Amino acid sequence: LNKRNRKNFRKLFLGLHGYEQSQLFAEFDFAQRKLIYTFLSPEELANVFDDTEEDPGEMGKYLDEMSDAYVSRLLSEMYMDNVVDIFTDIRPIKRKKYIGLLPSDEADQVRELIHYEDETAGSIMTTEFIKVDKNQTVDTAMQHVKQEAQEAEVIAYIYVTDEANKLVGVLSVRDLITHSDDEKVADVMATRVLAVDVNEDQEAIAEQVRDYNFVAIPVVDASEEIVGIITVDDIIDVIDEESAEDYSHLAGVDTETISRNPFQTALKRLPWLITLLFLGMLTATLINHFEGLLSQVSVLAIFISLITGTAGNAGTQSLAVAVRRLATNNHLKIARLILNEIATGIIIGVITGVCVFIMVGVWKQNFLLGAVVGTAMASAIFVANLAGSLIPIGMEKLGVDPAVASGPFISTLSDLTSVLIYFNIAQYFLQLFIK
Amino acid sequence: LNKRNRKNFRKLFLGLHGYEQSQLFAEFDFAQRKLIYTFLSPEELANVFDDTEEDPGEMGKYLDEMSDAYVSRLLSEMYMDNVVDIFTDIRPIKRKKYIGLLPSDEADQVRELIHYEDETAGSIMTTEFIKVDKNQTVDTAMQHVKQEAQEAEVIAYIYVTDEANKLVGVLSVRDLITHSDDEKVADVMATRVLAVDVNEDQEAIAEQVRDYNFVAIPVVDASEEIVGIITVDDIIDVIDEESAEDYSHLAGVDTETISRNPFQTALKRLPWLITLLFLGMLTATLINHFEGLLSQVSVLAIFISLITGTAGNAGTQSLAVAVRRLATNNHLKIARLILNEIATGIIIGVITGVCVFIMVGVWKQNFLLGAVVGTAMASAIFVANLAGSLIPIGMEKLGVDPAVASGPFISTLSDLTSVLIYFNIAQYFLQLFIK
Repeated sequence: LNKRNRKNFRKLFLGLHGYEQSQLFAEFDFAQRKLIYTFLSPEELANVFDDTEEDPGEMGKYLDEMSDAYVSRLLSEMYMDNVVDIFTDIRPIKRKKYIGLLPSDEADQVRELIHYEDETAGSIMTTEFIKVDKNQTVDTAMQHVKQEAQEAEVIAYIYVTDEANKLVGVLSVRDLITHSDDEKVADVMATRVLAVDVNEDQEAIAEQVRDYNFVAIPVVDASEEIVGIITVDDIIDVIDEESAEDYSHLAGVDTETISRNPFQTALKRLPWLITLLFLGMLTATLINHFEGLLSQVSVLAIFISLITGTAGNAGTQSLAVAVRRLATNNHLKIARLILNEIATGIIIGVITGVCVFIMVGVWKQNFLLGAVVGTAMASAIFVANLAGSLIPIGMEKLGVDPAVASGPFISTLSDLTSVLIYFNIAQYFLQLFIK
Repeated sequence: LNKRNRKNFRKLFLGLHGYEQSQLFAEFDFAQRKLIYTFLSPEELANVFDDTEEDPGEMGKYLDEMSDAYVSRLLSEMYMDNVVDIFTDIRPIKRKKYIGLLPSDEADQVRELIHYEDETAGSIMTTEFIKVDKNQTVDTAMQHVKQEAQEAEVIAYIYVTDEANKLVGVLSVRDLITHSDDEKVADVMATRVLAVDVNEDQEAIAEQVRDYNFVAIPVVDASEEIVGIITVDDIIDVIDEESAEDYSHLAGVDTETISRNPFQTALKRLPWLITLLFLGMLTATLINHFEGLLSQVSVLAIFISLITGTAGNAGTQSLAVAVRRLATNNHLKIARLILNEIATGIIIGVITGVCVFIMVGVWKQNFLLGAVVGTAMASAIFVANLAGSLIPIGMEKLGVDPAVASGPFISTLSDLTSVLIYFNIAQYFLQLFIK
């Protein structure tokens, strides 16, 4: 496919969608890529780069392989937000060099975009949008759209500004083509424009776009001037990213960055495991503290893992529910959530406790032991359940993302409380009935 | 706000975006809703219903409150896919009645849409799209688009069909407005159209739309005729739904359906807990089996929860990684994943085992005990780690969604294997060194 037959390759390759082209491109080796840079024009390659799902850092390496003239034309053809994505992931010296290769007005825009903080509107917006003056007619606006259509990333919406350059309205292409040519833009436009601030968090924006079913949302600065738009394809990436983050946190491991080297994989998982190991050692010293009791009634040891395991499971469930509710329902009353969780904990605890009481009582023909294990189980579940929702709520109050609290953390923590509860209850029952 | 002053209410309410209107509407009580049905025309309310995020079942109840004439006009104004959503959630007798209220051609379309299976392309597509003949000119196509623009849900793409009604191309509005009027559609259109089959799974479609950055994707039947389109707003809902499902599975609890009643909440969480309780009882009987050993060396009991807890955490991590990789990388070589996980398990196991060996040895001044606990820990982690990736892979092979394997399940299962490993190793060491 990739030999000296330039014509055939171009025919096949350019027939593909940009995303498929980028998938192919990612599999080429250095020599093949070098060939590509001669086979494809910078404009054609810009299409491929715009649709890629590859890591921006990877893309930066490709730039190093090209001639300066090629890079210059490639970058100025790409959508601004994608260029900025690449630039944020390469070393400052190189970045400076590449920005120097851009036409001066684009270079200025890139310099500005690059300074927005990660995960804000500014960092994901593009500056290629269509803007018309509110005093224009539908016809002149349409002419303007035709001119700009090749450059703009989304032409579904056209943004309307007033004399002071403030965003005052929005038009859809639908509005333009269904209204007569001589009407004024100001009379046709929708005056209620939902815009987001350039510093707003990307997750909040994603929620708005999802709820309002927008294809794009305008971004304004402090003086209400429109500085960019965020398109729905970037929003989908944000939603994906954020949900992958939540998932990773629940498991206590980054599930997204895939490394082929097992040492790197291990390195990624060990920190959390070792941290929790120390928490586990605390639990062990606690059991050690009760060794006298254990050697006296060694049957108690049988149910340690049953109680810690079940309480850990209940805690994980309540943690996941609390994290999701905090993420989706902002107007939720915290007091209500806690009360609900307390009641749920009592119900789950009592039912599970009774089950265990019967199972242990029948199995060991010892209903006193059953009562000890059952009571301990009920209390441990109640505490783990409550911790599972209180910890994320507390983190939210402290301004920490509640999704960081992980399932393994809750279950290891609940091991500690469960053991404490279990042995105290056992000791109490022993004193009550034996002595 | 909601008194007899119809005019004021309309002014304020209609000034809002459909989504905000629907948020308000959801908070109205029965009397207020009754008033709304007189204040707003069915066409205006259709806008509200199209943008709502409320449960389709809830929406069905609203229909019962309206007059038949009102329902009829309301439903025929709404987008078809939203109507079908409501219909799938109400009782068949009512559904039949409401379908009867629709104009006969729409009724036919609804009847057809309703039969597509849940979570397929057919169930999320809409039938309001724009279609032109390939022999039309750009100008006549544009006239057609203008006519249809009010009805269609998305006008970003116009689909082109041939004489046999087969989908042969696609045009963007951008193409229409940038080409001269007398060119033929067939010469302007893109001939490579990515379409999905009406029975395809929604998750696969969501991936395509995300990767290709589409705003809409056409749906075709077995004879390649276009039967509908899926718009990006529905895709966002799919992505949200699927990621919430994955998250829920990892925690072993449905985190999405929020019930305000703690009994219902408890009922949702108990099945999994009780199931795992039985698995936990198995672990308890296993420990019981080793009671002789335990009463002889009661110090062993101290480290049960340390080993089961840490192995469970490692298992949860490897489970989450495997589930995500299976979900995102379809072309992944399974053998490679397993080999990588085995290597990772060995590395993590050995490092954690050595840590534990030192900690226990120093603490208890007994390096033989340290060796027992360390070796058991290393083996238990290795097994849990492997199980965490083998179980989802096995489920995928069996055609079960691997995301169903939950963290609590893996950690309860690993309790069992960890205990088995721990006591066997302890027994072996004892025989070796003591006897």
